[in-house]
Amino acid sequence: MSDANPILASSEQSIRAYQQAIAQSSQAVVQWLQQPEMYQGKTVAELRERITLDFNPEGLGNQAAIERAIDYFLKDSLSVHHPQCVAHLHCPSLVISQAAEVLINATNQSMDSWDQSPSATLIEIKLIEWLRSQVGYPAGDAGVFTSGGTQSNLMGLMLARDAFFARRGHSIQQDGLTGDLRKIKVLCSRHAHFSVQKNMALLGLGYQSVTLVKTDRYARMDMNDLAEKVAQAEANGEQILAIVATAGTTDAGAIDPLRAVASLAAKHQIWMHVDAAWGGALLLSEKYRDYLDGLELADSVTLDFHKQFFQTISCGAFLLKDARHYELMRYQAAYLNSEFDEAQGVPNLVAKSLQTTRRFDALKLWMGLEALGQKQYAEIIDHGVTLAQEVARYVTEQAAFELVMEPQLASVLFRYRPAQMAAADDASVALLNQQIGDALLESGRANVGVTEFAGVTCLKLTLLNPTVSLEDIKILLALVEHTAQELLNA
Amino acid sequence: MSDANPILASSEQSIRAYQQAIAQSSQAVVQWLQQPEMYQGKTVAELRERITLDFNPEGLGNQAAIERAIDYFLKDSLSVHHPQCVAHLHCPSLVISQAAEVLINATNQSMDSWDQSPSATLIEIKLIEWLRSQVGYPAGDAGVFTSGGTQSNLMGLMLARDAFFARRGHSIQQDGLTGDLRKIKVLCSRHAHFSVQKNMALLGLGYQSVTLVKTDRYARMDMNDLAEKVAQAEANGEQILAIVATAGTTDAGAIDPLRAVASLAAKHQIWMHVDAAWGGALLLSEKYRDYLDGLELADSVTLDFHKQFFQTISCGAFLLKDARHYELMRYQAAYLNSEFDEAQGVPNLVAKSLQTTRRFDALKLWMGLEALGQKQYAEIIDHGVTLAQEVARYVTEQAAFELVMEPQLASVLFRYRPAQMAAADDASVALLNQQIGDALLESGRANVGVTEFAGVTCLKLTLLNPTVSLEDIKILLALVEHTAQELLNA
Repeated sequence: MSDANPILASSEQSIRAYQQAIAQSSQAVVQWLQQPEMYQGKTVAELRERITLDFNPEGLGNQAAIERAIDYFLKDSLSVHHPQCVAHLHCPSLVISQAAEVLINATNQSMDSWDQSPSATLIEIKLIEWLRSQVGYPAGDAGVFTSGGTQSNLMGLMLARDAFFARRGHSIQQDGLTGDLRKIKVLCSRHAHFSVQKNMALLGLGYQSVTLVKTDRYARMDMNDLAEKVAQAEANGEQILAIVATAGTTDAGAIDPLRAVASLAAKHQIWMHVDAAWGGALLLSEKYRDYLDGLELADSVTLDFHKQFFQTISCGAFLLKDARHYELMRYQAAYLNSEFDEAQGVPNLVAKSLQTTRRFDALKLWMGLEALGQKQYAEIIDHGVTLAQEVARYVTEQAAFELVMEPQLASVLFRYRPAQMAAADDASVALLNQQIGDALLESGRANVGVTEFAGVTCLKLTLLNPTVSLEDIKILLALVEHTAQELLNA
Repeated sequence: MSDANPILASSEQSIRAYQQAIAQSSQAVVQWLQQPEMYQGKTVAELRERITLDFNPEGLGNQAAIERAIDYFLKDSLSVHHPQCVAHLHCPSLVISQAAEVLINATNQSMDSWDQSPSATLIEIKLIEWLRSQVGYPAGDAGVFTSGGTQSNLMGLMLARDAFFARRGHSIQQDGLTGDLRKIKVLCSRHAHFSVQKNMALLGLGYQSVTLVKTDRYARMDMNDLAEKVAQAEANGEQILAIVATAGTTDAGAIDPLRAVASLAAKHQIWMHVDAAWGGALLLSEKYRDYLDGLELADSVTLDFHKQFFQTISCGAFLLKDARHYELMRYQAAYLNSEFDEAQGVPNLVAKSLQTTRRFDALKLWMGLEALGQKQYAEIIDHGVTLAQEVARYVTEQAAFELVMEPQLASVLFRYRPAQMAAADDASVALLNQQIGDALLESGRANVGVTEFAGVTCLKLTLLNPTVSLEDIKILLALVEHTAQELLNA
């Protein structure tokens, strides 16, 4: 049966209900954390069969609804903190993030206007100022928290597009795209995130606008090819909106040569956006900060804290070097950011965001930085990068494994190819590796990525989790081998 | 000092840290709920002065970081549950949402691929199926949870754009916009949400592409003007991508005549999107469900559960009537939604979303529906709509207040204009009402919206909160009057 007053408010009854709901759900989390399995192994069909919404006239009440969520959702969740859960750029989260979320959700502040989030707005602004200083940008507060890297990349590409046309006296915001659009291009490496393509389609320019630059043997943008593609484009009368450099490609973790790209972009007056959704974590590194050399030269930057900053989803940011470019997306709504307000210096962050109602994700990073401090944040970030190097070394020592790429950030790309498959064609090896990944997940014992890298279907370990050791990965690799042998014998 | 292991995991130490962090933060929430003030009244400058990030080498540890967040953020948050906090479409949230958030954040499932969110993916799919049945759509699962209404509207407009060109044999996704883009139009009422403009700018068509349709005296789309604008556009050789109808305009809460719009759109083969971010709550209403008559005829629908469904931010959805239109935005990434996976029927929701990494917001609505049940959900939604009618009646009875618009959903637009200002010009009355709003927030006693409606600067009460009574609003109106008199005397 449902409660008399279901809203979180100041009444005694509501407070009691809140305390009970938090206690019940957090205790369930503790039990779930202690489940030894990474995943209970149910198939899509089994989950589909099992899960049904119980929306009845009277309501189940909080306690029963939580019990059902534990049974149907929590127990069959993927344990992202599990040492053998290493498939994706999907991190276990900080304990302090959980506390931040309790505050974020109870207050339910909305970041679009100051009068919906007074202290929260100032915390977000100060954190953007701080992030800019870490990147090496001039002092200022041009930037905003986003739902993640894809949205941050969209903001970078949109402003690059609009700035490009603005320099030619044309307002995209007001008048839309014009001219021969097939001549408009964006350059990024062939290992850049697929959101470049998806976002260019959204922005009205299509996949055709994306010119893929070759990469070197470490999956980094090949500067010779970039220079050639720029020259070619100019010779063809094409116009380049932006060069998107990646600091941390999804699979190889490759970081494009940022300083060299910036220099070329500056020479041709092209907007440079850096997708540092993953590699941006190195801003806090002690050992690897220099990998980001040149980041400060970018016109805009994507950061993502729900990756190697270990924040819960969602937590991303977009930084814009020159605040004046924000004018390109300015919109005034009487009820949110009136001229009257703005004349009085009231900061209404809706003007900086593609979202309207927006959660206070910034608090998680703020509290994480304060709680962990510089040394510990550096430690948990550096751990993954160093571990990947150790794992790669170990992989090369095993006869049945092939290392597909030297690690650069915290991922290892490899495939299983035992002696008995030395003569097998690539398609059979590819299928075996795909089946290994699927069988491991089905068994609930491990989650390993399956991807294609430079035409080779391979397995991927994304070693974000700082509680994982080389020993854990040796266990995982033994499991891969064991599973492969079972598949080959079957 | 920071903790030895800051990650949420299965170790005893981590579990203890988690329990402490949840206890400390949730107890702070309880104390904050009991703060009698709506807001502590600090100015932007005071907050800016006070708040500083303490990022030091050693870290403060969880406990001190939480204490600082309580002091700098929580105490100076806006109490959105407070009975005099009625400025925006910004809701107090359900207690059960808080429990759902505990589960969402501890598990940190990512909705882009099934292997990052096995049970969560199925729950989201089932909930989309259920929402479709509520709207009156054919059975299916075309739809996805979004970060909010602005993003849902973007999806609707993008698919409308791409479907329009696809019917002419042109793929926007592949080849981008083409032709005379100044001839491409979208129609919506002059009271539609500003995200129509912002999104059309993002999509490359500019504000110029948005033709505003006149509204009737209730701020609803004027069907004669719509028919005329469509005819005009056709006569001018313009092409209409979409008609966006609104079910619940931000200020007046007006619901456009959905069935009539749908009939006109169908006749001209124009995509109809309905922005039901606010009014969609009436899907669960007992008294007012018929306001949404015709919603089922739309090609796509925006719903937003962090408004009158009382979920914490973020929680929105996008529904697409015909699943085939999802093909327009299909993109395949080897590591997320490979052909191999898709051939095996593994549901990877990244294909349905503009986001990649995405939080499991669907759980909040799922648990809310189960806990409250049909009757109670209807009650808390209907409460606001009925209260707005009562408040409007009361306002018209007060000599010093003018009702600016009959309420339709849960908002009341009015202004203060006492007898002594009978001869004052509109600008003076406007300034006074703006100052009333600012003074109330500054005093920390109430948050009332200030907006402009049909050229009139007015105050706005958005009466979402089901714990608010007519008596609370009478107190608020007395406060408005008192504040106004102080301002006039000063």
